Amino acid sequence: MSDLLRGPVEVVGAGLLGTSIGLACRRAGVQALLRDTSAENLRTATGLGAGRVTAEGDRPQLVVVAVPPDQLGSEVVAALRRTDAVVTDVGSIKSAPLQVVAGEVAALAGRYVGGHPMAGSERSGPLAASAALFDGRPWAVTPHGTAPEAAVELVEELARACGAVPVRLDPDEHDRAVARTSHLPHLLAVLVAGRLADAPEAHLALSGQGVRDVTRIAAGDPLLWQQIVTLNADALAGLLEEVAAELGVLRDAVVAGDRAVLGRLLSQGVAGTRAIPGKHGGPLSAMGSVYVSVPDHPGELARLFADAGAVGVNIEDIHIDHDPGRPVGLVELVVDEARTELLLESLESRGWVTHR
Amino acid sequence: MSDLLRGPVEVVGAGLLGTSIGLACRRAGVQALLRDTSAENLRTATGLGAGRVTAEGDRPQLVVVAVPPDQLGSEVVAALRRTDAVVTDVGSIKSAPLQVVAGEVAALAGRYVGGHPMAGSERSGPLAASAALFDGRPWAVTPHGTAPEAAVELVEELARACGAVPVRLDPDEHDRAVARTSHLPHLLAVLVAGRLADAPEAHLALSGQGVRDVTRIAAGDPLLWQQIVTLNADALAGLLEEVAAELGVLRDAVVAGDRAVLGRLLSQGVAGTRAIPGKHGGPLSAMGSVYVSVPDHPGELARLFADAGAVGVNIEDIHIDHDPGRPVGLVELVVDEARTELLLESLESRGWVTHR
Repeated sequence: MSDLLRGPVEVVGAGLLGTSIGLACRRAGVQALLRDTSAENLRTATGLGAGRVTAEGDRPQLVVVAVPPDQLGSEVVAALRRTDAVVTDVGSIKSAPLQVVAGEVAALAGRYVGGHPMAGSERSGPLAASAALFDGRPWAVTPHGTAPEAAVELVEELARACGAVPVRLDPDEHDRAVARTSHLPHLLAVLVAGRLADAPEAHLALSGQGVRDVTRIAAGDPLLWQQIVTLNADALAGLLEEVAAELGVLRDAVVAGDRAVLGRLLSQGVAGTRAIPGKHGGPLSAMGSVYVSVPDHPGELARLFADAGAVGVNIEDIHIDHDPGRPVGLVELVVDEARTELLLESLESRGWVTHR
Repeated sequence: MSDLLRGPVEVVGAGLLGTSIGLACRRAGVQALLRDTSAENLRTATGLGAGRVTAEGDRPQLVVVAVPPDQLGSEVVAALRRTDAVVTDVGSIKSAPLQVVAGEVAALAGRYVGGHPMAGSERSGPLAASAALFDGRPWAVTPHGTAPEAAVELVEELARACGAVPVRLDPDEHDRAVARTSHLPHLLAVLVAGRLADAPEAHLALSGQGVRDVTRIAAGDPLLWQQIVTLNADALAGLLEEVAAELGVLRDAVVAGDRAVLGRLLSQGVAGTRAIPGKHGGPLSAMGSVYVSVPDHPGELARLFADAGAVGVNIEDIHIDHDPGRPVGLVELVVDEARTELLLESLESRGWVTHR
């Protein structure tokens, strides 16, 4: 439990996200209360240990609204009226619910600070929940003009208590960001997956990891996603135009065998993958290098990797450099900076010649 | 070593796939020989233990050509002329190289049987290689009209020796299949990734696992992919037309807020993800169910999952059923059929009431 977030945290909606927040709060030593119109969801969520059902007289410090996008605005309004707590939500769009809140209860809107953890699953419901769902993930916190700093900080503290990395930005900016990093990827994954729905079995038999990864999110709940994309239509429309234009260029280049154009588009894609920040969506952690002399004999690199693996240090990248005229190569192992000493000592103890 | 595949297997091209095949052959006890125009690649591949460099007088039983698509045809022809071995390849397209072979050395073409393991990485080069790269993956084997059965079976045996599941189909059918399950997903991943290349940092900070998965393959080598998609233009063009038309419908529906149309497209995407066969691309393994009575108390489901996890049995799906009026729920754990007995015994030994 932190000084700021004392609890209890009341979660409205014991689905995948709500139940996961309950589990993560309890992991952090913060009391979690659960509210849902579905008795089934409440039974499952409490059975998983995500908290207890809210009772008469409970006074939550923070209410987290975790309901489908269409109901976000009205459930936030209800929570603001029902309690005197700070109210946040975990919805995928932030401008639309804010408009409802500002329109219906302008006087209470200061206690509302939008939020959106960038975590989820193509599965839904409390049974798919996990206390670790948010670990290392970005969690957007989207204060509007009248939100007091203390309320914003409380929501950021919830994100941290759940293991996430809070990222503060304004509601409109958030909606433009997720149009690009979440909603557009979802829709294009759906178009790829749509081509598989009636595909011959012999074609599907060749499905590798690539098509599985590209289409995984397309398994998400259509009822949820039709709400998300229509509530974010303004931000999405321009991106869909861009993609349609580029798809036309791509098709023409494929048909014409124009490798220069294809090379440009493919390289832009590579650049895009490199623009995504560090593995877990948080800031990149600093990397360090360990240099090892490796005799130029069969099997020596294999032995080095086995020895490095035995220490449990994750090798993030590898470079190899052969000095012409020397029967030894210099291998650079790139690892988390905090692990370089451990790796150096361990490799030296196994007889490798290392350099700093 | 199998009776059929005695080796040596000569790999032409010690890149990611070639080096991985060398490693996998050696893992299977089959001698691997390596040939590459790059001395650097050969040093790295032999250093990893992927085999030794081919020497004068070597008589491979099977040659595996693992070079970029543009050079496939000519390298297969060279291998047919240089040796009397069966020759296969691991290229992403199968009709184009076959045309080169049939056109240049029709008399030797019987010894050529195309192949294509559905495995790879967005990284390239021998340092990214792994003996396990093909484990559980489909490996297309694409005999043409004059290939004798014994040659086809030898290539299928190579696939199995590398841990893969051979899938036999004809070269044209293969190219249509991979247009759908590999080349189209790649191009759409590139379009999504392209939108990230110049995105504001605040937008990129919200990148979650979804966009990472969708765009991962877009990091693949542009020089390789421009060859693949132009050599498979015939099969790709129609699919790109389909996607362009559907993208137009999608954009109109987003702008108009037409949830019925969106629901239909999103549901088609869900159906597509379900059409992909079992996790590892091979046939689905049979599933069995274990039923457990779970008291309706907080934390009981969490305890059940912890106990099931402790046995190391992977839970593939979960269903929960509450009998109204009973303080106990019945939970169905779906696991690999071969593991049901182990899970049952272990849960019983930990005090759970189970049912078959």
